[in-house]
Amino acid sequence: MRHVQLFGLASQREIRAGDDLVGWVREMCAEEGVQPMEGDALVFAQKVVSKAEGRVVRLDTVTPSAKAQELFTQTGKDARLLELMLSESSAVVRATPHVVIVRHHTGVVLANAGIDRSNVQQEGAGESVLLWPIDPDASARRLHVAAFDAFGVHLPVIINDSLGRAWRRGTIGTAIGAAGLPCLLDLRGREDRHGFKLQTTEVGSADEIAAAASLVMGQASEGIAVVLARGVVSAERYGCAADLIRSPQEDLFP
Amino acid sequence: MRHVQLFGLASQREIRAGDDLVGWVREMCAEEGVQPMEGDALVFAQKVVSKAEGRVVRLDTVTPSAKAQELFTQTGKDARLLELMLSESSAVVRATPHVVIVRHHTGVVLANAGIDRSNVQQEGAGESVLLWPIDPDASARRLHVAAFDAFGVHLPVIINDSLGRAWRRGTIGTAIGAAGLPCLLDLRGREDRHGFKLQTTEVGSADEIAAAASLVMGQASEGIAVVLARGVVSAERYGCAADLIRSPQEDLFP
Repeated sequence: MRHVQLFGLASQREIRAGDDLVGWVREMCAEEGVQPMEGDALVFAQKVVSKAEGRVVRLDTVTPSAKAQELFTQTGKDARLLELMLSESSAVVRATPHVVIVRHHTGVVLANAGIDRSNVQQEGAGESVLLWPIDPDASARRLHVAAFDAFGVHLPVIINDSLGRAWRRGTIGTAIGAAGLPCLLDLRGREDRHGFKLQTTEVGSADEIAAAASLVMGQASEGIAVVLARGVVSAERYGCAADLIRSPQEDLFP
Repeated sequence: MRHVQLFGLASQREIRAGDDLVGWVREMCAEEGVQPMEGDALVFAQKVVSKAEGRVVRLDTVTPSAKAQELFTQTGKDARLLELMLSESSAVVRATPHVVIVRHHTGVVLANAGIDRSNVQQEGAGESVLLWPIDPDASARRLHVAAFDAFGVHLPVIINDSLGRAWRRGTIGTAIGAAGLPCLLDLRGREDRHGFKLQTTEVGSADEIAAAASLVMGQASEGIAVVLARGVVSAERYGCAADLIRSPQEDLFP
């Protein structure tokens, strides 16, 4: 029987800049009695990757540019936060009093440039926010290599954030960085059971894995920031989350 | 440990109009040695629900309207298929030579109104296509009630189709109908581990379950059209897929 399993690795440890995430995963696996094996994938919450990479920014260190001030007039949001959104992005896609949607430097279109105010330790020193890793695909590659060293098996890595969508309510887990697996499965030319060519051409399977992992991670206080996904990975070993991005030229909703 | 499992129920049986889908699920569960239990959910591929509801249409029975002819000029697609897309939809969102995106009567924005040419038996009588269930939430409710009768436990039901997205390549499993579970989890006001209010307000958890199930269903010849999802469901029991739809008034990408 085709069977997929998702194991949530829980920890109350607070991740800090410079922490060894894969060492931490190894500890959690040992505690939970789970051994990563060939065919598994590791899904990391973006927040822990960002924290380990020191992507916390104190808002009182940010000086809004003229462009950020202008966006403040449009949206009413904190101009320092807007400044960070602009510095993380290549374009503002929509800006309203409710939401600022940008094209992040990675190409991902999302609200607030992925900048998060929750779950960031404030340390009594003014409010801090958390930015995405500078290059989430590169972060995933580093974690993928470190996971091979730690566990001795090929373990694809996905970095997951909960993103909103056009047309649909609610965020869902999405692959913002990935290494060691195909993120986009190309089914073009495959045939169905009646010998009919399939019309669905490409499946965003890394996004499906990220969404599945989000079911386990929860969103609030559970402290599950890493999920071991079993039975999700094919034999192919190459790909990155950039493969999932439709270029602005191809897109009908720029 | 938080643990989610997805069991793929495989069958080579071809579903036909009027078939008892829950009876079929019961057979597959018995064959696979899986017993649905409280806390599980059943995810059905849209195709089998549509087939059981007799939503196959022979293209040679369709006469294109003037509007469909006009859309043909714009897109070059089969005018009979365009006629069906129009009759399934309340609005055309975008139409190009590559793709027709509509707002389906359910409110879901998607390509080709969800009409599928693959995996539909042709029966030597001209090409046939498969439409969505008329009301996928109502279909899910019927399956949910039938599943209670068959298994004696509360089993939420999701109807899943693979849909494309704005900005991202690849389709992912999406909840187009649902019953017996909250589809949208409202986290507003919940606090994170630092007592900070969460900014992510709503999670599209039924879409995450659908995406997870798609990992098991595969896309081509495997014949897995039903997935039993274990460990995904909260104590709440009410909701439908319509909850996941952002109204055109609220949407920034109409």
